[in-house]
Amino acid sequence: MARLRVPSSTGTVRSLASTVRGRVTARDVDLAALDHDASHLAGRPVAAVSPVDADDVEALVRWARRTRTPLVARGGGTSLDGESVPIDGTVVVDLSGWKRILEVDADALWARVQPGVVNWELQRALHPRGLFFPPNPGSWTTSTIGGNVGTNASGPRSFRYGATRAWVREMEVVLGTGARVRLGARVAKRSVGPDLLQLMVGSEGTLGVTTEVTVRLAPVPARREGLVVPLPAKVALGRLAGRLARVPESGLSAVEYLDRNCAAAIAERRNAPWPSGVALLLLEVEAGDAEEAERRVERLRSALGEVGAAERLTVFPDADALWTLRGSSGDALEERFGRTVREDVAVPLARVDALLRAFDGIARRASVPYFLFGHLGEGSLHPNFAVSPASPTAERLRAAVLRASRSLGGTISAEHGIGRTKREFLAEELGAGAVDLLRAVKAACDPDGILNPGKLYPEPARGARPPSRSPSGRRAGRTRNGSPSDARGSTGRRAPSPARPRRRAARP
Amino acid sequence: MARLRVPSSTGTVRSLASTVRGRVTARDVDLAALDHDASHLAGRPVAAVSPVDADDVEALVRWARRTRTPLVARGGGTSLDGESVPIDGTVVVDLSGWKRILEVDADALWARVQPGVVNWELQRALHPRGLFFPPNPGSWTTSTIGGNVGTNASGPRSFRYGATRAWVREMEVVLGTGARVRLGARVAKRSVGPDLLQLMVGSEGTLGVTTEVTVRLAPVPARREGLVVPLPAKVALGRLAGRLARVPESGLSAVEYLDRNCAAAIAERRNAPWPSGVALLLLEVEAGDAEEAERRVERLRSALGEVGAAERLTVFPDADALWTLRGSSGDALEERFGRTVREDVAVPLARVDALLRAFDGIARRASVPYFLFGHLGEGSLHPNFAVSPASPTAERLRAAVLRASRSLGGTISAEHGIGRTKREFLAEELGAGAVDLLRAVKAACDPDGILNPGKLYPEPARGARPPSRSPSGRRAGRTRNGSPSDARGSTGRRAPSPARPRRRAARP
Repeated sequence: MARLRVPSSTGTVRSLASTVRGRVTARDVDLAALDHDASHLAGRPVAAVSPVDADDVEALVRWARRTRTPLVARGGGTSLDGESVPIDGTVVVDLSGWKRILEVDADALWARVQPGVVNWELQRALHPRGLFFPPNPGSWTTSTIGGNVGTNASGPRSFRYGATRAWVREMEVVLGTGARVRLGARVAKRSVGPDLLQLMVGSEGTLGVTTEVTVRLAPVPARREGLVVPLPAKVALGRLAGRLARVPESGLSAVEYLDRNCAAAIAERRNAPWPSGVALLLLEVEAGDAEEAERRVERLRSALGEVGAAERLTVFPDADALWTLRGSSGDALEERFGRTVREDVAVPLARVDALLRAFDGIARRASVPYFLFGHLGEGSLHPNFAVSPASPTAERLRAAVLRASRSLGGTISAEHGIGRTKREFLAEELGAGAVDLLRAVKAACDPDGILNPGKLYPEPARGARPPSRSPSGRRAGRTRNGSPSDARGSTGRRAPSPARPRRRAARP
Repeated sequence: MARLRVPSSTGTVRSLASTVRGRVTARDVDLAALDHDASHLAGRPVAAVSPVDADDVEALVRWARRTRTPLVARGGGTSLDGESVPIDGTVVVDLSGWKRILEVDADALWARVQPGVVNWELQRALHPRGLFFPPNPGSWTTSTIGGNVGTNASGPRSFRYGATRAWVREMEVVLGTGARVRLGARVAKRSVGPDLLQLMVGSEGTLGVTTEVTVRLAPVPARREGLVVPLPAKVALGRLAGRLARVPESGLSAVEYLDRNCAAAIAERRNAPWPSGVALLLLEVEAGDAEEAERRVERLRSALGEVGAAERLTVFPDADALWTLRGSSGDALEERFGRTVREDVAVPLARVDALLRAFDGIARRASVPYFLFGHLGEGSLHPNFAVSPASPTAERLRAAVLRASRSLGGTISAEHGIGRTKREFLAEELGAGAVDLLRAVKAACDPDGILNPGKLYPEPARGARPPSRSPSGRRAGRTRNGSPSDARGSTGRRAPSPARPRRRAARP
């Protein structure tokens, strides 16, 4: 059985440089920028390559198959669970230079872009045409469309618009076999069998390297107002969210929650115009004009009244002013709590209140400060625990949160993906049969396991276990011989190297 | 290599009856109701079984693997391209009795149903709760949720709501391997790798037998108005549709087109309140109340004016009155033209006008009466040619329409699926690499090719060819030895029988 090789840097660079037309580098200063993502993990890539076009990507993937070298493609490097962290010995495929918006069809509402286009840059280009790309993850000023697609990213407005999955029309992908395929279509309506495109969305770079994406666009609403609703302590959040979801023609595009700690941190440090000491509901209402917005706000006020939550409602005539305040919460909270472990789970609306109680219990038992915000309208919540993300406590907290979500019928990842940190929980969520099917898809697309090994797919040999069993809590030196279970390719083939990613040192 | 067997009816019934708990029959009177769908094709099933629950389906699939017997699951039998036609020798899995609505969560907006629930029955059960299931194919009074999912069905309101694909949250499926899996989730937001659920939607029963579906629901709009817009002869339809799509907060949920022939047939035979001699645009506008509807209609009127199409606009205060009229077009047109070949393609909006010219040319060259309607807002059009669907002319017309759509960057199926009649065009649309990936998925789910053979997947051994090469144009007797290329399982395994479906005799 083929094994992934232990590459030597000089040999790899020479061999790669003679294969692709793009820049190849193994300089420390270049690799240092590419050895981590926005998680607490880091790895040691053996080289980085910037392919110049899809032909070059094809040559690269074929070279990787031939030489059994692992590849990890990346854009903005903003993934939160190690999705774009290179395991040791990987060649990083740097697509951050692929920034061209190739075509916009304003009538048919789509844009064809290179995967390295930053989400915000795309929005900026579309705005003058009255169009936008709805998915708006928190990382939107630096994350790329390729990365948004690879992790099925989403943000507050997915309440109305759905996640990235709903906004991809067509992709060009070089599969791990070396075959270049176009999946999906630009037509608005199509029924031609199973949807292969949706295999690629959320696949975290494990099935192919994306070389082009056609995204769907929406017209910019004429008006977007923000609403701040202070929440009585005893309000049932799940019921509240369910009531709001059933208001017809409400124009609601975001239903966000900030707990008392978040609301207070923003109020105190950013002078936000809301009362301290209570949790808040933040809403965005879209409308065709001011009068329509007013009518919609009234409809929502009345629905909120029914669940006992409609006093002292504050309207922001421009929703962006509200989101700027809310966006500052990260800094405001870090000023107050330091770095935190931020989790990402979602449960059915009816279980939201039970999940909050579970979070409280987890924080109390661990005796760590804790705060919470999230996309309440979709049951999607981010509990934050004020401990170093690289600490053993952090790993216990993460595992406890994922288990709490699962036990309430929820998911282990609402928005961020599986990556490196959650793969040992995947089988528990999907079930053995679905994991087998997933592995079959992986084997068909990437028979040699060269694409982003060590991510997404659980280890085949063992049952579900938390990723917390790693022996060291510090940034370790390069571990050439990782544990056997860790060094298998994701299709189950054993590979002597590369080893697991290391934790990154805490930021200064 | 394993072959699908040539079954004997008596032996099959005996063997099946000792395996499953559900009713097994091989009586002619029972099979006659199950040997065709809404296409012009028919086959000769060897038996039919009505499994009683998912365990029974599992036993059935394992029996089929063991005995190499082909299975075709069906609900309402309304598929239009032979998706649910049994090829000769198949055991029909009749799920039309699986009619239970198992659970409705009105807050979280989903319903868990058995696959045999008729679309209309689901709507009727949901209406008192102020909810509905948006996909509304023309067949909605008889087609089932399982069939809607299997073909990714859609109707006029997909302009706003999307096709069935967008409204499935979770499925329980017994794969062709015999493994029972649950795919998808009930949570509203989830990012846990490639979307396996979307492999099942549109798979036309070729990957597994669906035993349960959880669909997403939407709140019923407070108001739905219909608009009829007579179209000047020279209006550019693609541009018109594009302009309408970009009206923000228009509440538009359907953008339908009727050509002069359709409009006239309905006007003359059903006393419709619109002028004769012109093509029509039919719109549906949703709104929270009458005043909002009025504002929205004004916004649309203004957009229509910009493209020269806003004179003499008629408003139907209740959209359903308009759809009832439009729904009568089938009968009205059949009264006028007799049975027709109805095709189902979609092109990018910018190519709609070119597609209409292509249809005109095809009808003119064949000298057949022709009319057209469709879901213009999505570039999805149904050209109708007044010839018998089973005639050789029909096959030439179908092929010409599909090729015209492809040459304009369109698809061979907008809404109906691939089934039996379009599979030889699939590779042309998807490309060889994507077809290989599709076959790999098929092989993983149904390694023995027992599920709905002869559908969806093109023959592996030959290039793209139209389905018109079949030797006979009449309802033929049972052909035990079909042409070799026809008798292969869809994964490429050769099977000596069953043979191709026969054409059905024209209806009296």
